[in-house]
Amino acid sequence: MEFLSDLLVPSKTKILLVVVDGLGGLERDGKTELETAKTPNLDALAAKSSLGLTTPVDAGVTPGSGPAHLALFGYDPLEYEIGRGVLEALGIDYPLKRGDVAARGNFATAKDGMITDRRAGRITTEENERLCKRLSAEISEIEDVAIHIRPSKGHRFVLILDGEGLSHELTESDPQKEGQPPIVIQPLARDAGKTARIVNRFVLQAQEILESEERANILLLRGFASLPDLVPFPEQFGVKAGAIATYPMYSGLARLVGMKVLETGSTWEEELDTLTQQREDFDYFFLHFKEIDAAGEDGDFTKKVQLIEEFDKLLTRILDLGFDVVAITGDHSTPAVLGSHSWHPNPFMLYAPQTARTEGMPGFSERRCARGVLGHFNSLDVMPLLLAHARRLKKFGA
Amino acid sequence: MEFLSDLLVPSKTKILLVVVDGLGGLERDGKTELETAKTPNLDALAAKSSLGLTTPVDAGVTPGSGPAHLALFGYDPLEYEIGRGVLEALGIDYPLKRGDVAARGNFATAKDGMITDRRAGRITTEENERLCKRLSAEISEIEDVAIHIRPSKGHRFVLILDGEGLSHELTESDPQKEGQPPIVIQPLARDAGKTARIVNRFVLQAQEILESEERANILLLRGFASLPDLVPFPEQFGVKAGAIATYPMYSGLARLVGMKVLETGSTWEEELDTLTQQREDFDYFFLHFKEIDAAGEDGDFTKKVQLIEEFDKLLTRILDLGFDVVAITGDHSTPAVLGSHSWHPNPFMLYAPQTARTEGMPGFSERRCARGVLGHFNSLDVMPLLLAHARRLKKFGA
Repeated sequence: MEFLSDLLVPSKTKILLVVVDGLGGLERDGKTELETAKTPNLDALAAKSSLGLTTPVDAGVTPGSGPAHLALFGYDPLEYEIGRGVLEALGIDYPLKRGDVAARGNFATAKDGMITDRRAGRITTEENERLCKRLSAEISEIEDVAIHIRPSKGHRFVLILDGEGLSHELTESDPQKEGQPPIVIQPLARDAGKTARIVNRFVLQAQEILESEERANILLLRGFASLPDLVPFPEQFGVKAGAIATYPMYSGLARLVGMKVLETGSTWEEELDTLTQQREDFDYFFLHFKEIDAAGEDGDFTKKVQLIEEFDKLLTRILDLGFDVVAITGDHSTPAVLGSHSWHPNPFMLYAPQTARTEGMPGFSERRCARGVLGHFNSLDVMPLLLAHARRLKKFGA
Repeated sequence: MEFLSDLLVPSKTKILLVVVDGLGGLERDGKTELETAKTPNLDALAAKSSLGLTTPVDAGVTPGSGPAHLALFGYDPLEYEIGRGVLEALGIDYPLKRGDVAARGNFATAKDGMITDRRAGRITTEENERLCKRLSAEISEIEDVAIHIRPSKGHRFVLILDGEGLSHELTESDPQKEGQPPIVIQPLARDAGKTARIVNRFVLQAQEILESEERANILLLRGFASLPDLVPFPEQFGVKAGAIATYPMYSGLARLVGMKVLETGSTWEEELDTLTQQREDFDYFFLHFKEIDAAGEDGDFTKKVQLIEEFDKLLTRILDLGFDVVAITGDHSTPAVLGSHSWHPNPFMLYAPQTARTEGMPGFSERRCARGVLGHFNSLDVMPLLLAHARRLKKFGA
């Protein structure tokens, strides 16, 4: 990374990374979602672009959205881990600061000290919100540390500790099984004693408050985590970076690496409006489209095909903005036939009319990308490739 | 490796790795052995499979069978070295234990203390057996260490030391030249003094016994080695693993990493009988076919082509066993035109009807694999890919 930073040169070129979440797929009746979809614009652009296949983390490894995006942003996901607690905080758009400790919480049911339901009968989000409000009203600080309790979905909430000298190196209180008592949290590092003490005190105080609740009468904590200590994206790669995403987790991931998150609407067209309006203000944009992944996760092949076709229709608008470098790819594959993220590499298209080698023939699919001029490479190489094609990296050596 | 272990999930899926030893080749009259052979079954299967090319160790590196198999088994051959002594012991099917020290021995001829023939006039294996028996009868123990002397082929034998506190960190006694005396063995590590002393005593005692021999009147030792200290395969990859191979070196390599070696006959059909009979008892099978490599080593292009055609005929039997994931590949290439192992990457076919992307067009050859959907990758990635396609790896991160 330092080696790459040494090569950075200033430039006025503009880069756009379009992440079509879960774009890659698997065949049904011999064709993948991308092959089934009618994508005349993507197919035509492929002829004027370089194609390749990217592996997000490593061979055979199915990544979550966190590591998959980190890799696309140029940070090694095996080096910079994003803990569960941080991810949950990003997911509710909580403005986590460096040094905060976040944990994922469950409301649960206990009887005579033993857990009888780890999800408190799957209480509603509304009930969850009421409980978090009740707890927040009574617990706002322990010792010199501010305590924030924020509802997530269903029985899940996020606990954030905000203060000096905190550590996320803690064991979990959730035994992951019913019929057992919650576990007292232990420090896993020398400097984690204070945090363990505060968290255990929080658990006890919360329990006293929740005692009168019928279902959610205790809480369980796990996945203690802090923001990874990374060089901010603009500094690392010499670009002013803006992020446009409709789902909080993805804007959260962008904010986490130091991009500026831009206000936008909830539709793809609105995301493009934001991009159009702010085009002049940034060197690099991360533009995230979520829904295709969701269709894949739902196992809905037809829906995924339709959404890819809709995405194809946006291409002219995207290209009309005249970016010097446009990359279109997924963070990970989400084959509808598997109904989940997968380890299959991502189709990757790099359009840089001044600087990219081109395929010279149309067609954008997993199979075409497998034979593309960029070959197979790791997602971690995406940032250097984008910078190079934007002429933002000088010669190494003489 | 630890990272991968953390992702393992239990499953009932079954994996079959078919190693066609020395499968890859080089062209004669414009076609490789694999391209010349009529392989209708392999060609048809390729359309329903993912293809790729694997590099066993590193670019340009021609591997021996040891490192090539270690990589396929998921162990980095640059990290886990298999010394010559261990390989020789595996080759004669000696049940080496962790802590044993094995060395490769030569019977040799000396006159007035100087070596006149490092191979003792290439004595026959029968004579070798007689000599080993003679030595074994008189030397069975030195200090508290049991001494085993086992004949290999021609003038070669294996010396095994079995006892406490042994080390393989020793110099060799073989000066690798005639006209020089055997060299006194020296310890190369602090804790190797005892072993050096015992080995030197063994050499002297053996010399006294062999004095009366006409040709094999001394012995030379080299390649001291112990079993590498690796996490056993079933533990590392979460699979009960069975190995089927007709040659002791390959079953030995499988045993070395912790697979269960299954009794089998000496033909390919008998190996498949064993596979069929034991199918239910293991999650992962390593099935090794040796003869194609031997034809390559002999420089017999036509024979190699014939054997590949014979292998092709077995494919239906293999596929009928209904494995979830079947990989067909070589450990290394053995081009008949070179008459030796080579550095050329291996054709690799992955058939996983539920989870693999497919080529969609028939044909199995080095050139087709070079353009396959899996691209070019290291053999070390084979295990993660097999596990992923067998859905035995959970998501990394969230």
